[in-house]
Amino acid sequence: MTSGNVVFAEYRKNAQLAQGYSILDAAKKAEIEISAVCGGRGLCGKCRIVVKQGSDNLEPVTHLEMMSLSKEELNAGYRLACCALLNREGTTLVGVPPESRAQQQRLLVAGIETAVSRNPSVKKFLIHLSKPSLEDIKSDAEILLDGLSHEQQVTHASITYEALTQLPTALREGDWSVTVTMRDGSEVICIEPKDTTKRTYGLAVDVGSTKIASYLLDLNEGKVVATASAQNPQIPFGEDIISRVSYASKSEKNLRELQGVVIACINKLLFDTCESAGVNASETYDVVLVGNTVMHHICLGINPRFVALSPYPPAIKSSVSVRARDLGLKTNPAANVYVLPNVAGFVGADAVADVLATEIHRSTSLSIMIDVGTNTEIVLGNEQKTIACSCASGPAFEGGHIEFGMRAEPGAIENVYVDPSNLEPGFKTVGDERPRGICGSGIVDAVAAMLKSGIINKYGLINTKLNNHRILTDGAPRYVLSWKEENDLGHDIAVTQHDVQEIQLAKAAIYAGATILMKHMRVEPHEIQKVFLAGAFGTYVDPQSAVILGMYPDVPLERVQFVGNAAGSGARMALLSREVRENADRIVQHIDYVELAADPSFEREFTEALQLPHKDMTRFPTVAQLIKRE
Amino acid sequence: MTSGNVVFAEYRKNAQLAQGYSILDAAKKAEIEISAVCGGRGLCGKCRIVVKQGSDNLEPVTHLEMMSLSKEELNAGYRLACCALLNREGTTLVGVPPESRAQQQRLLVAGIETAVSRNPSVKKFLIHLSKPSLEDIKSDAEILLDGLSHEQQVTHASITYEALTQLPTALREGDWSVTVTMRDGSEVICIEPKDTTKRTYGLAVDVGSTKIASYLLDLNEGKVVATASAQNPQIPFGEDIISRVSYASKSEKNLRELQGVVIACINKLLFDTCESAGVNASETYDVVLVGNTVMHHICLGINPRFVALSPYPPAIKSSVSVRARDLGLKTNPAANVYVLPNVAGFVGADAVADVLATEIHRSTSLSIMIDVGTNTEIVLGNEQKTIACSCASGPAFEGGHIEFGMRAEPGAIENVYVDPSNLEPGFKTVGDERPRGICGSGIVDAVAAMLKSGIINKYGLINTKLNNHRILTDGAPRYVLSWKEENDLGHDIAVTQHDVQEIQLAKAAIYAGATILMKHMRVEPHEIQKVFLAGAFGTYVDPQSAVILGMYPDVPLERVQFVGNAAGSGARMALLSREVRENADRIVQHIDYVELAADPSFEREFTEALQLPHKDMTRFPTVAQLIKRE
Repeated sequence: MTSGNVVFAEYRKNAQLAQGYSILDAAKKAEIEISAVCGGRGLCGKCRIVVKQGSDNLEPVTHLEMMSLSKEELNAGYRLACCALLNREGTTLVGVPPESRAQQQRLLVAGIETAVSRNPSVKKFLIHLSKPSLEDIKSDAEILLDGLSHEQQVTHASITYEALTQLPTALREGDWSVTVTMRDGSEVICIEPKDTTKRTYGLAVDVGSTKIASYLLDLNEGKVVATASAQNPQIPFGEDIISRVSYASKSEKNLRELQGVVIACINKLLFDTCESAGVNASETYDVVLVGNTVMHHICLGINPRFVALSPYPPAIKSSVSVRARDLGLKTNPAANVYVLPNVAGFVGADAVADVLATEIHRSTSLSIMIDVGTNTEIVLGNEQKTIACSCASGPAFEGGHIEFGMRAEPGAIENVYVDPSNLEPGFKTVGDERPRGICGSGIVDAVAAMLKSGIINKYGLINTKLNNHRILTDGAPRYVLSWKEENDLGHDIAVTQHDVQEIQLAKAAIYAGATILMKHMRVEPHEIQKVFLAGAFGTYVDPQSAVILGMYPDVPLERVQFVGNAAGSGARMALLSREVRENADRIVQHIDYVELAADPSFEREFTEALQLPHKDMTRFPTVAQLIKRE
Repeated sequence: MTSGNVVFAEYRKNAQLAQGYSILDAAKKAEIEISAVCGGRGLCGKCRIVVKQGSDNLEPVTHLEMMSLSKEELNAGYRLACCALLNREGTTLVGVPPESRAQQQRLLVAGIETAVSRNPSVKKFLIHLSKPSLEDIKSDAEILLDGLSHEQQVTHASITYEALTQLPTALREGDWSVTVTMRDGSEVICIEPKDTTKRTYGLAVDVGSTKIASYLLDLNEGKVVATASAQNPQIPFGEDIISRVSYASKSEKNLRELQGVVIACINKLLFDTCESAGVNASETYDVVLVGNTVMHHICLGINPRFVALSPYPPAIKSSVSVRARDLGLKTNPAANVYVLPNVAGFVGADAVADVLATEIHRSTSLSIMIDVGTNTEIVLGNEQKTIACSCASGPAFEGGHIEFGMRAEPGAIENVYVDPSNLEPGFKTVGDERPRGICGSGIVDAVAAMLKSGIINKYGLINTKLNNHRILTDGAPRYVLSWKEENDLGHDIAVTQHDVQEIQLAKAAIYAGATILMKHMRVEPHEIQKVFLAGAFGTYVDPQSAVILGMYPDVPLERVQFVGNAAGSGARMALLSREVRENADRIVQHIDYVELAADPSFEREFTEALQLPHKDMTRFPTVAQLIKRE
């Protein structure tokens, strides 16, 4: 059974308990697949569970578990499922945190699902109308509006121009039974003959600087029916946001070009998701777009130049509604594109979507949301006050600027562990294919494992004196995860000294941003009840690995939740609920933007955070326990 | 001085009165050009005036005047200006009806000007804004809306997507002074740097089946700055409405084709008017379109098929607003196209425009409005009740189906008279150029003059026994207006027997329609206080000639007003006034449509009206006096 993010597995009286029968084995029987990258050898530390009842039925905590789990975790009942051997009959109740569930890993990348009252902007109604007669010559529009009023109690509706052009033919083709697509309960946007009410789809799109993710939803069921993602095709025009702004600002033509490639990409994703779900693109009647402010502007064809110039004003904060065809989207021509509002020049609609998905603004307790990307947005707050900032963290966590970095495609190393006894690595790839590179979650795991096992020190330097065959020193020092003979790349796949530095720069920027927000709100890390870790790491990032790097303040691990692409989740919520949209416009009015560049302590915070996990180890007590010191 | 449609000319004490000095001569001195096609020989009857004061100063009524004017007219003080000789000093006050004023002829073709309170949908405001600062980072949109609220007391405005894309650059280019174009006081549709408020134009277009007329207006001044017209380019797809409906209904492609050629033509007229007024097409921010229901549908890309099938329902009655760019119009991209509402399948937006221009629906007294075209719309009523019908009158009055018919271009014969003594014709051409053909008003004049002078009889048959050199009988009988040696056509220009028949068919349809409307309202001709004669005759049609043909009920001539292209006038009014637009939607709710085909007496009325002016001459007492019987 599942409840929230935890699976409760009960192992009742069982006479045939084999020697060495673990919770991991029991879970398999119960068809709960627990993630164990190392194959159950106690090395990867991915199969964390919490024993809720019957701890006496288990063998004592092993040495391997003590290395993988912090003192707090051990005290809280955490075990590794592969090490926790059942030694006698009885009921053992364990909780399996979401990050330990193998089956969920891929799914969760799509982002958390936050419940919304389903009330999409776009709804279809089947209505039956009566023909006009010579005695009662009504116009087609009058007949339709009368029918809507009688059958659906919709009064004061208007008909869009597009719907009007469909009306006369649809009424006759449908023999006066038509499906009316309405927007926001007041606008008839499409008329189709007969009953097409079951075919109502919408597209939610998160336009990241690096990756564009799309979700096709059945608006009747409120469910995702297909997802697809692609690299942002603007990358050739400038990897970072600023160079794209610079390119777009040069001429109207350049702006149109950057807009054009994104729109073409979204169209491709639309067609891909539609194809895989057996949907026609014209059955997509609504679109929600999110992205940072620059992506927002470029997608809409608004010159982003001034967003990048002090005082960084966005062209607009409030949400924008545009006709899909005006943007060149190949949905139903009647579809509308709703773009979530922006907070500031560098905290855009994607951050608002993050807030919607994590509901920070509605919580009584203090939460921090970190949406890791090329620009990382951080939001700290609760129902009383919410503040946000943005930091330039670079694309390392998305696999960018990493020697063997790649997207989370089949063959990408997504989980890594290092056997502390011999420094031999183990890993899991996407699709369990032969390795081809390392994706975001893989590089986080790898660097954390290298730190834990002493392959790198707190300065991030690879210990070339270890004299291990995996640590190569010809050229730049590097740690080999996969020999060229073992992979499809034809080249050793390694984590290089430079890769580690990229990760350090990225995580330092994020940690410094989070620290300054906390300073602004005068709160300490222990006051934070919830850390939402979001971002396009490719696959499920291990919150423990992330905290080992010092990416976010060291809080008890159970307070940390990886929420995947939360911006995408927020976009989906806006696609499913008009209330969420109204909420979004209120949220931006209540988020205070903190300009990091204007904070005098940013520089020092950043520099100190370059160490792993931090120069000041008292800030990372849990991590301190886990790291094997030189 | 002018008042309404009448010029009052005062001829005061004058010692040097020459022998034979007429009102026509006096008018010339006073720079009031009175129309006298025959050059002041008392033959054309076009220089009718009404003596208001000082009739004793004039020589008695001449024989020629008695032939041109009816008994009622003579009793009411009507004279011909060329025949009314001043015989003594003193003040003579005469009224010059609009149809007698030569200067006005060409102008009045543009239609009457009905006063409207100027409140155009589109208005520009210059506003001065303050830059954002790091202390107060507002979005550009917030700055703009705050400015609108402070400087113009415009609250709750929204910004269209197009305006949003212009905003960031315009604000900086204008150094925070921008011109805001607003629609209906609530929607920002365009942002331009600096002050462009003086450049606010709009286009009114009347899409007739045969002719498309356009008017470029300065929306600040409320004045027409240029006009242009062209033949409807759909004519090659079918001269009559039904064949165009049939063509458009065959496929979506055909419909798009018919729509495309009209839109291209309107764009051409837009560019032509803009060029002649020194306006850039992008300075046109608003468009009003009128046309019959089929033209309405085709212009909007709505399948017109069902309009032509019983019970002839239009797709929509109420007014439609469409973005100009959605129709492919090359105005400012932000421009909106407002299309006036329709009454019924065959009484369209053009008839509503006619009603707006003539204000039938606001008058306490009974009026009839006849908008002559390929389809002629007739509206009868007053402020209490208004009814309308449509009759298929064919293109004869627009010069169509007439052997030497042509548009009212230079060289078109626009006025005709026949000297009763020798049956010699006289005429005036457009631009006073050598004749090339006959336009609508010319053919009306010619047939009326032929009837008056006995060249044709009440059945419309040319009297070939008259043995006049102008009446040719080789082939079909015809009456020659201009010998080939005298014109630029290289061919005798004549009115043929067939032409007369076309006119008979056309006017019979119109008269039958008017009669059935009167029957529906149970009113007699004498109860009609005002006849508005509208239509695209080319130039100013002579109401007397029209009544001689029996086109409309025989009412005293002073009750008849030729209002030219009243549909165009109504379109211009809607361009200048939001109240007029609101009014228009109310009008259609209160006009009852009369389906002529459903009236059992239509056939008989039509047949009887084929005679000139009518089988029952008691219905045309005034005309009876004027016609020289065989």
